[in-house]
Amino acid sequence: MIHSLSLSDVLADHARSRPQVTAVVDGQLRLGYPELDERVSRLAAALDGRGVSAGDRVLWLGRNSHAVLELLLACSRLGAVCCPANWRQSEDELRFVLADLAPAAVFHEESETVAALREPSWVRAGEEYERLLGQAAPREFPQVADTEPVLALYTAAFGGRPAAALLSSAALVAHATSLLVVRQMEPGFTFLNNGPLFHVGTMMFCLATFQIGGTNVFTPAFDAEEVCRLIDAERVTQAFLFGPMIDAVARANAGGKYDLSSLRFVSHSPEWDDMITVDDSPWCRSKMGGYGQTEVGGMLTFLGLAEGGAGFAGRPSPLVQVRLLAPDGSEVPAGEVGEICARGKTLFSGYFARPGLNAEKVRYGWHHTGDLGRREPDGTITFIGPRLRMIKSGAENIYPAEVERALKSHPAVADAAVIGVPDPDWHQTVKALVVLEGGARATEDDLVEHVRGLLAAYKRPRHVTFVPELPKRGFTPDYDALDAAHGGGNYPGE
Amino acid sequence: MIHSLSLSDVLADHARSRPQVTAVVDGQLRLGYPELDERVSRLAAALDGRGVSAGDRVLWLGRNSHAVLELLLACSRLGAVCCPANWRQSEDELRFVLADLAPAAVFHEESETVAALREPSWVRAGEEYERLLGQAAPREFPQVADTEPVLALYTAAFGGRPAAALLSSAALVAHATSLLVVRQMEPGFTFLNNGPLFHVGTMMFCLATFQIGGTNVFTPAFDAEEVCRLIDAERVTQAFLFGPMIDAVARANAGGKYDLSSLRFVSHSPEWDDMITVDDSPWCRSKMGGYGQTEVGGMLTFLGLAEGGAGFAGRPSPLVQVRLLAPDGSEVPAGEVGEICARGKTLFSGYFARPGLNAEKVRYGWHHTGDLGRREPDGTITFIGPRLRMIKSGAENIYPAEVERALKSHPAVADAAVIGVPDPDWHQTVKALVVLEGGARATEDDLVEHVRGLLAAYKRPRHVTFVPELPKRGFTPDYDALDAAHGGGNYPGE
Repeated sequence: MIHSLSLSDVLADHARSRPQVTAVVDGQLRLGYPELDERVSRLAAALDGRGVSAGDRVLWLGRNSHAVLELLLACSRLGAVCCPANWRQSEDELRFVLADLAPAAVFHEESETVAALREPSWVRAGEEYERLLGQAAPREFPQVADTEPVLALYTAAFGGRPAAALLSSAALVAHATSLLVVRQMEPGFTFLNNGPLFHVGTMMFCLATFQIGGTNVFTPAFDAEEVCRLIDAERVTQAFLFGPMIDAVARANAGGKYDLSSLRFVSHSPEWDDMITVDDSPWCRSKMGGYGQTEVGGMLTFLGLAEGGAGFAGRPSPLVQVRLLAPDGSEVPAGEVGEICARGKTLFSGYFARPGLNAEKVRYGWHHTGDLGRREPDGTITFIGPRLRMIKSGAENIYPAEVERALKSHPAVADAAVIGVPDPDWHQTVKALVVLEGGARATEDDLVEHVRGLLAAYKRPRHVTFVPELPKRGFTPDYDALDAAHGGGNYPGE
Repeated sequence: MIHSLSLSDVLADHARSRPQVTAVVDGQLRLGYPELDERVSRLAAALDGRGVSAGDRVLWLGRNSHAVLELLLACSRLGAVCCPANWRQSEDELRFVLADLAPAAVFHEESETVAALREPSWVRAGEEYERLLGQAAPREFPQVADTEPVLALYTAAFGGRPAAALLSSAALVAHATSLLVVRQMEPGFTFLNNGPLFHVGTMMFCLATFQIGGTNVFTPAFDAEEVCRLIDAERVTQAFLFGPMIDAVARANAGGKYDLSSLRFVSHSPEWDDMITVDDSPWCRSKMGGYGQTEVGGMLTFLGLAEGGAGFAGRPSPLVQVRLLAPDGSEVPAGEVGEICARGKTLFSGYFARPGLNAEKVRYGWHHTGDLGRREPDGTITFIGPRLRMIKSGAENIYPAEVERALKSHPAVADAAVIGVPDPDWHQTVKALVVLEGGARATEDDLVEHVRGLLAAYKRPRHVTFVPELPKRGFTPDYDALDAAHGGGNYPGE
C-alpha cells in the first residue's frame, strides 16, 4: 500500500502542504484545504454511520455544488463509490438509475422529478446536508487502495440503456496528471466548474485542479453574466467553455464591465482575445482537441501532443497506449481503419454490474472503445466514428463523422449529422440532416456536390433533409433519435 | 493488466505514434523510435537467448551511452532489472557490486578495473554489442506488469556499504510524469545526458524525455566544449548542468562560437542568460530546487510548486504524500523536526537483497527517507539533513561512514571520523580526523592514497588531521564537536 495514492490521500496531503490555499468556492462558502479535509472526514463518518460501506454507491442528484467534490472525497476516504447523475433526466430514466445503482445513500436538490421519487432516507442539499456534517465527528479511516473504484459516471447507451463507468482513484489521479502536463497547470490554477459535473469533461478539470492544489469554483450551471462575474471576482484561470459559450461570454462582457484577464485560455475571436490572456500551453494552442470517452478517464489522445500532425485526434496521452485493432485482435496497418483500443493508467474499471458488457469491452488484453480510427503515416490518430454507426453501402464502409466534417466545411452549414437508411439494392444509403446558418441558403444539390468534391463518390449523401436543429446527447448528435425520426436503420452492427 | 504501462509499453506506443521522431543521438548513431523499438526487441531476444530471465539483473559498467537506455528498455520487455553502475569505482567496490547483484549478464566499456574483473561471458560495448544485436531476431514478448522492478541504482552507504534501490516501471513512469508537469516538458524536448546515468539526477530526465517522446542525446561525460557543440548541433532543450558546470559552459562559449539559444534553462549569470533562453517553467523559475533521493524515484518535493514558500525544499510532487514522523510513527506538528516520510506512485520497491534494511525503511506504512525535515507554517518543507550525516561535494553525496570504514582498514589507523568543510567550488570537501595506532606511522598522503585505492576518487579526504583521540557520543563520533573544532560546516541541511 506504500505506492497507493487515493483522492483521499491527495486531500490529506494538501491539508498539510497547502494550509492557506482556498480549495473550494461555492456562493458564500469558501473552504481552505484543511477545512475541506475536515468536512470530508465528517462526511465520511456520517456516511459510515448511515451504513455506507466499502463498495457501496452514493448518488448525487443535483446541479453543480461543492457537495459533489465533498461526496466524492468522502467516498474515497471510505472506499465507497460516488455517482453524480444527470438530475435533468426524466422520471423513468432516474428510476432506472436508482434500480441499476441501488445506492446506499442519496443526496439531492429539489426538483419535480426528485420529489416524485424521494425516499425518507434521502438527504437534501443545503441545511439538511450541513446538519449531517455538523453532527458527525471527524475521525481516521484506514487506507483504501487506489485501485478501488471511487467515481461512477453514466455514459453511452450501449444497448439502449446507459451504464455507469467505474473509475478508480489511480485512474483519476493519472488522468488528472496527464491534464496537468498538456494544460501546463500550476499551483494557483483556478477552475470554474460551469459545465455539468456528471459529465467527464468538467469533472476531469475539477480533479486536475484539485490534484495540483488549486481552487475549484462551483456555479450551478452555465450563465454568461455569472461566469463573467466569477472569473473577475475569483481570478479564474479556466472555465468549461467552448464555441457558442465563448461567444455568449464575450457578448455578456462586451461593455468591459468585468476583468477577464485572469482567464488563460484559447484564442477564439478578436473581442475574446482582447478580454482574456491567450494561453500558449499545448492544450490551448491546439484549441483543446483530441479524442476521449468516460471509459478512458476523459482524454485518450491530445491534439496538443501532435502539432502539425495529420490526424485531428492527435497523439496518445503520456500515460496510455493506443492500438488500432481488427475484429480478430490483430493490429491494422497505418492508413487502415480499425477500432481504437487502449491500455494504461487512466482506464476505467469496467461498468457497474455489467459483466457481459465488460467482457465485450476487454478483448485480446485491450479496452475496445467502440470507436473507429486510423493511424496516419506520421503516427497521429484520426477519429472516424462509432463502430456501430458505420454505414454499409454496397461493399463500402462509410463513416458518418467523415461525411459530417465534409458537410460542415460548406459555409452555409451550421451543423450536420449523417445516418444510414435501408436500401434494397445497397443495404444502406447515406442520408444527411443539415442545419443551415441563419440567413444562409444552399440546396440539396449544392451540398451533395460539395461533398463529392471532397470525398469518394460513394460517400456522398443520396438524400439531404434540412432541419431547424439536431437533437443532441452531450456534444454529439442523438443518432437514435435521428434514426427514429428520419428512417435510419439496417446498420451492420445491429 | 489493462492498467499496466511499462517502459517497454511506452516505447511500443512511441514506435507507432512517433515514427518520425529521433529517440536517440549518440555520436554518429541516430535512432528513430521505430528503430529503437526494433533494437530493443533484438536485445531482449539476445538476453533471453543468454539465459536472462524475469527478475534477473543485467549490469552496465561504462560511461553514458545509448546502450544504457536500450538495456533498460530490453530489461523492461523481458521483466529483468537493469543496473547502470558507477564504473569509476575501485576494484574492491566493483567486486562488491558483482557479488551483491549476481548479474546474469554484464555489458561494459574498457577500463583497467574492468579488465581485472572481466569474465568471458561479458559483452564489450561497441562492436561486440552490435554483433549481439545483429544476430538476434526481434520477437514479441508477453506483457510484463509495470509493478515489476526494472531499474537498480546503487545508493547511500547505509551501514557503510551501498545498496541497490529497485525502481518499477510504474514508479519511473509516474516520476517522469511529475517532471513533465513541473518542467513543463513537451514533445520535441531534447535532453543532453551529460551527467552520469548511474545517478538518478540524470536518469530521471532521460526517462522524462523518453516519456514525452522527445530526443535523448548521449555524451560519455561532461566536457564543456562538447556540451556546447551538441547543444548547437542537436538543438538541445536541457542538459544536466548546475553551478560550476554552467560557468564552464559559459566560459567555453565566451566567443559565441556556438548557438545555445535552443537551451531553455535557468537564469544564472548575465553572460549565460544572453546565450540561452531563460525558461519560465516552475522547475527553472525555482532554480531546480527541491528534495529527493533515489528511493523516491528522484524528486519527492519541488521548490517550483511552492513559490514564495518558507521551506526551501518546496512542496510534494503531485504523485506522492509526505509526512513528518516521530520515531514512534506519530506525526510531528508543523514547526518541529521529524523524519521525512513518503507514500505514493514514484516510490521504489525496496533494495535488492536487503530484507532487513527494507523492513527498517518501511515502518507504520510509510517509507522513511532517513532524512530530517520540518513543515513550515505555510505547509512547505525544509530539509534539515540526514538523520545519519552526509557530505555534499559537487553533485555527489558522500557518506562519512563509508570513508571512515576505508580509513580504518589501513593498518596504522586506530580510529577515524570524517566531516565536511565548506569549499567555495565544491560546496564541501572531505576532512578526516584520524587516530593512529600506538607506535604506528602514516602520512596524510599515505592515507589519501589508501582511500583512493578503495573508493571513487571524489570520496577521498582532501585534508587529514591527526588527533590523539575522537570525542564520542555513545559509540559514534561526536560530529558536532568535531565540526566546531575542525571547521566543519556547509552541510546540505544547513
